[in-house]
Amino acid sequence: MNQDYIKPNNWSIIEEGFEPERVKSSESLFSLGNGAMGQRANFEEQYSGPTFQGNYIAGVYYPDKTKVGWWKNGYPETFAKVLNAPNWIGINVNINGEALDLYRCKSVRDYRRELNMQEGNYERSFTAVMQNDLEISVRITRFLSIERDELGAINYELEVLNSDAEIVFEPYIDSGITNEDANWEEKFWKTLEVQNEERQGFIISKTLKTEYHVCTYMESRLLKNGKILNISPEGSSEEEKISHHYATKVKKGEKVSLQKFAGYVTDMNHERPGLIDAAKGVLEEAFETGFKNLLQEQKQAWAGIWEMADISIEGDVKAQQGIRFNIFQLNQTYLGKDARLNIGPKGFTGEKYGGSTYWDTEAYCIPFYMATKDQEVARNLLTYRYNHLDKAIENAEKLGFSNGAALYPMVTMNGEESHNEWEITFEEIHRNGAMIVAINRYVNFTGDYEYIPKKGLEVMIAIARFWQQRATFSTQKEKYVILGVTGPNEYENNVNNNWYTNYIAKWCIEFCFENLEKVKTEYTTDYDRIMKKTSLTEEEIQNIKDVAEKMYFPYSEKYQVFLQQDNFLDKEIIPVSELSKSQRPINQKWSWDRILRSCYIKQADVLQGFYFFENHFSYEELERHFDFYEPLTVHESSLSPCVHSIQAAVLGRMEQAYEFYLRTSRLDLDDYNNEVKEGCHITSMAGTWMSIVEGFGGMRVVDGKLSFNPRIPEQWKSYSFKVNFRGQVLKINVAPGQTSFTLEGEKPLELYVKGELLTVEPNNLVTI
Amino acid sequence: MNQDYIKPNNWSIIEEGFEPERVKSSESLFSLGNGAMGQRANFEEQYSGPTFQGNYIAGVYYPDKTKVGWWKNGYPETFAKVLNAPNWIGINVNINGEALDLYRCKSVRDYRRELNMQEGNYERSFTAVMQNDLEISVRITRFLSIERDELGAINYELEVLNSDAEIVFEPYIDSGITNEDANWEEKFWKTLEVQNEERQGFIISKTLKTEYHVCTYMESRLLKNGKILNISPEGSSEEEKISHHYATKVKKGEKVSLQKFAGYVTDMNHERPGLIDAAKGVLEEAFETGFKNLLQEQKQAWAGIWEMADISIEGDVKAQQGIRFNIFQLNQTYLGKDARLNIGPKGFTGEKYGGSTYWDTEAYCIPFYMATKDQEVARNLLTYRYNHLDKAIENAEKLGFSNGAALYPMVTMNGEESHNEWEITFEEIHRNGAMIVAINRYVNFTGDYEYIPKKGLEVMIAIARFWQQRATFSTQKEKYVILGVTGPNEYENNVNNNWYTNYIAKWCIEFCFENLEKVKTEYTTDYDRIMKKTSLTEEEIQNIKDVAEKMYFPYSEKYQVFLQQDNFLDKEIIPVSELSKSQRPINQKWSWDRILRSCYIKQADVLQGFYFFENHFSYEELERHFDFYEPLTVHESSLSPCVHSIQAAVLGRMEQAYEFYLRTSRLDLDDYNNEVKEGCHITSMAGTWMSIVEGFGGMRVVDGKLSFNPRIPEQWKSYSFKVNFRGQVLKINVAPGQTSFTLEGEKPLELYVKGELLTVEPNNLVTI
Repeated sequence: MNQDYIKPNNWSIIEEGFEPERVKSSESLFSLGNGAMGQRANFEEQYSGPTFQGNYIAGVYYPDKTKVGWWKNGYPETFAKVLNAPNWIGINVNINGEALDLYRCKSVRDYRRELNMQEGNYERSFTAVMQNDLEISVRITRFLSIERDELGAINYELEVLNSDAEIVFEPYIDSGITNEDANWEEKFWKTLEVQNEERQGFIISKTLKTEYHVCTYMESRLLKNGKILNISPEGSSEEEKISHHYATKVKKGEKVSLQKFAGYVTDMNHERPGLIDAAKGVLEEAFETGFKNLLQEQKQAWAGIWEMADISIEGDVKAQQGIRFNIFQLNQTYLGKDARLNIGPKGFTGEKYGGSTYWDTEAYCIPFYMATKDQEVARNLLTYRYNHLDKAIENAEKLGFSNGAALYPMVTMNGEESHNEWEITFEEIHRNGAMIVAINRYVNFTGDYEYIPKKGLEVMIAIARFWQQRATFSTQKEKYVILGVTGPNEYENNVNNNWYTNYIAKWCIEFCFENLEKVKTEYTTDYDRIMKKTSLTEEEIQNIKDVAEKMYFPYSEKYQVFLQQDNFLDKEIIPVSELSKSQRPINQKWSWDRILRSCYIKQADVLQGFYFFENHFSYEELERHFDFYEPLTVHESSLSPCVHSIQAAVLGRMEQAYEFYLRTSRLDLDDYNNEVKEGCHITSMAGTWMSIVEGFGGMRVVDGKLSFNPRIPEQWKSYSFKVNFRGQVLKINVAPGQTSFTLEGEKPLELYVKGELLTVEPNNLVTI
Repeated sequence: MNQDYIKPNNWSIIEEGFEPERVKSSESLFSLGNGAMGQRANFEEQYSGPTFQGNYIAGVYYPDKTKVGWWKNGYPETFAKVLNAPNWIGINVNINGEALDLYRCKSVRDYRRELNMQEGNYERSFTAVMQNDLEISVRITRFLSIERDELGAINYELEVLNSDAEIVFEPYIDSGITNEDANWEEKFWKTLEVQNEERQGFIISKTLKTEYHVCTYMESRLLKNGKILNISPEGSSEEEKISHHYATKVKKGEKVSLQKFAGYVTDMNHERPGLIDAAKGVLEEAFETGFKNLLQEQKQAWAGIWEMADISIEGDVKAQQGIRFNIFQLNQTYLGKDARLNIGPKGFTGEKYGGSTYWDTEAYCIPFYMATKDQEVARNLLTYRYNHLDKAIENAEKLGFSNGAALYPMVTMNGEESHNEWEITFEEIHRNGAMIVAINRYVNFTGDYEYIPKKGLEVMIAIARFWQQRATFSTQKEKYVILGVTGPNEYENNVNNNWYTNYIAKWCIEFCFENLEKVKTEYTTDYDRIMKKTSLTEEEIQNIKDVAEKMYFPYSEKYQVFLQQDNFLDKEIIPVSELSKSQRPINQKWSWDRILRSCYIKQADVLQGFYFFENHFSYEELERHFDFYEPLTVHESSLSPCVHSIQAAVLGRMEQAYEFYLRTSRLDLDDYNNEVKEGCHITSMAGTWMSIVEGFGGMRVVDGKLSFNPRIPEQWKSYSFKVNFRGQVLKINVAPGQTSFTLEGEKPLELYVKGELLTVEPNNLVTI
């Protein structure tokens, strides 16, 4: 069911009208994050209706005991879970003895949520008549500070419209929380210390097993008509909870508000004994600055992000809102400051999928962060995998590989595998290839070749070794085959010679040895270090190269296309367009075996290869493969539409490209898959950015230069975006028949537009 | 690790010497059962060492909530579990205030268990020095009555060797039990009523969800020097337990014994309100008869079973012990009296595998029961499936099939699917074929054709429909293909065109329509009923037949063999003999993906087809396929060696046939797979019987006549077995160069020996 309640708006996500059945979906859509922590848009006050509570701390996870139907050798013992963290947003409100609870009010009107993406805050307001007939008006503003990423702030303002009344605010912090997604209904947190100090409260708790120590803290002030009341609250602390009790009498029409500063400090960034002191420091600075100034600071911080990352679209407010929502959520999830962190598929908006890191990061997210942030950010994402190399080697050893072969995990928090379905964990090995694609993209885009001798080459060697050990020689085909894999299309399992996997394997090997040669001649010290560390012999190199040279690729002479896998053409080939709507989505309607033996493709598979290795194929080849595979694709992965949008644009099919663009950009806002209540699809949002920049804008890097092939959907008047390319920022504006470039930088920049070389001078608009 | 502590003996399983680490294995091997209930050989008295407690009631199960890693459409909501039932064997023993516990004794000597298979009882005896330095001698006899299948009996005899002493026996019944195999650690039983009446105790408990009501009961007598003491015990009843406290003082050398009669009556066989009365009735008759007479009755009952089922082997005590252990366990598990019951893979010896019914019953067990029991027993096994037909149709509907197509469950208790791994549950569909093979075997052997018009044909039509809907037409091959299956070799998943599956599918269809024609002409009333019930149209018949006619079979011209599946030859073909021992068993050493892409075969797959359809192929074809596939087979299923033993015998390779025979017959006694502690492999025991009768004896049914092709392993002097063929019993004795037949019956019997027709007259030895 599509959302239809989000108002079209260029800069905000707006909901009007209170509908309890929308609460969980809105909790996802209005989520807040600042890269270090995040939370679903749960209500501050008590709410007895259906809700999905979620607060998250980046990098803090729990290795839940694996749950499987039938144990198989090689399954990981544990499964890292995204952790619901202690709640610091809670503010219970009591008026004349009745608790405010929107689910129990006699009526609610003027209910409105606004996620102000431009300024990075979230406001909720409503007027309600309570059971005791008091009519109240409420407005809450909340944000997570980008500048001070351990700090969150809430201003909870209330007015009683029809009477004098006694109001009690009860801000609290609570570490007695549970996960929705817990395999064995165990608790993941243990509370260690509860320290209650007048206006301040601190709870130290630790995650079980992983032993992350977290201090959840709060401090509040009560204001009447804008002035701070010098009230000392009554405090009460329970085993896992601290509440402060601020009571005041108000006259009809008087505004009273509670300001609460709160958040987490953790032992990822502080010494354990100093956690409470660190929290006190954050609070002191926050109160010195004050809520209004913090809000202003927040606006500026977001202005800085938008300055670089914004894509503006003229003439299509839904498209505009979609792309900004995507860019906003990506920046809320990951800001690239910390190489220990990564981009979880649900970000800070839900628990589903566990783990923080999929191949999504390498395949979909890196281009966005590379082009809209400092290049250090993309390098941090690569370094994250470099730091996990030993664990990837261990992971491969568990599956019977040896001699330094690495298999990166399908899902991970700390480098260890966190997925446990054999057809994915053991067989969806193409993920290894994306690691190398990301390195190639990074070096191509940034020109930072040094990453390869310093870190990347070791990863390449480990992965080349994996491919060599994983392939087997078919005496029938006189070629190397890769048996028993799952490709990007997870609707086929345990197939042989998935073309995408075989192709990326061959490419990984070739790319590895090209670079080995280059490092050998140009970075001798690194070369010696690496050769010593990896003990790579000439014989092994030859064996690995042999696999690449003799790799098998299934091909249909009849259709003149590479086959998704050996037996693809044994399937009944019936286009999706002939499938009844009642049968879709097939992943909700069909049993798994039926999906597996059908020809339907979940997401780009052969076409994913054509996307990564576009320049290996001709326009005609792309067209033929697109026309063969897209009609069989059900796009039931959030990662599917963007690749197809880009390719449709390359093929000049702008209507189709636009359709895919809308689907990817408004996937969550319009709730295409009826699942936004579980959280937003964060990683695929980077694909939305690619749809515009690489799809419509046609941006590529060719011979170390940016290249564009601008097109524009006919629904749009113009669109513009910026790209941070090798230390200079290029702004591109595309309108029908006219593209203009502006360069913020110091040196002239050569680039290609539709294949023609063009030089853009700094601060000088070029229009063609 | 092989067992080496079981003493070779023709009629008994004997263990000598107390080793705590062997207790769990012995608990399996010394299990008792009488078809209606059974139990592991747990100690009666308290035991604080490692033990696996198990008591089971045939047909009483619990639908545990399914546990999976990642839910897939079509998975069953529940998973039937073999239920650990209330304990009635418990007798705590206390001597001068110290509890007898073998794990805590200062020393244990003369420890001995004997499972007397000939007489159907189990004896345990030992001499122990307790912590209080009392030296005691104990001898316990236990059996589950075959004649009175709700009754068990224990005689617990004790003597204090070095002192006078006060002895307390505390017989108890306890319904506060749990399952080792519980997905969510829930309780499966609820105790409803605890009724304590002087010497008698009754606990009514019910299984949760399935609501089986069971009365567990007991009554005991204390005897000194063989005379009943007229003691009224002190009783104590707790929430889920009743204990009776029999105290007596004995002089050194006096023998005291507790006789306990106990067991279950259930609402499967009695009205719920009358359960306690029914138990009282069983007790009254038991005490009237007395322990000694019951033991005598038991011996006679087993003599009756052995009279028909025994296979005697001269000259090879280990082989003799092996086959008798197998025959004994099969008869303990299933006696064929009740069409609601079936043969669980662990019988009453453990919980593993859940559910009671696999395709093992049809593929392996039916020939044994058919030849050694009244033909009603085999008919009951077929009827079990006929009664589940509606559920099999529902099961297929859940997977998207329609119009009365049936898919029998992989594992079941009540007709519903109880397995939940997609590659098995959804894809190991060949199990459907075994249902029809069993019908064919039954009719062939018994001549009871009427089973087909009355019941079998409906099953055949539903299964033929399934195959038609499951096959797809490959335009490439211009044949029907069956995609995405798991064959009998579960070490390949989601493969295309598993030869065995395709072959059995084609055969099922052909067999169905052959019989439809016959029923149409010979059983008109049944035909009309069936056609009305199934709404089978001529068009549908043609569609189904078309699938059989155009079925595809993968074949290798190079090797001149049918291929296990389309892509088998893409694998690296390396015989098991070249695999290092350190790598085996591969299911314990390798990750699942590695197993899947290897060429290693778990159990007969193509050869299973050659076994079922032996007369469709020539000797040369069998030889070629055996030589191709057997060397790639790791026999890591208990069901594997028997088929290979039979085929090796057909090929005249008696050394190999004998090796496989030993492996199947002593699988548990010698603990080949180091897992007997989990229970015995009951269903494969029927395969052991087949190894001798069909393998060495070469018994077949040809044109409605028995046919033999006797061979004998050179290790044996002779062997003999009996076959109940169409109401007459034929005894066959095979010695080197000489086979003799004796017929217990009234009419002469024509049979083939090595292809020559021979007539055996009743009660007249024929030797050739």
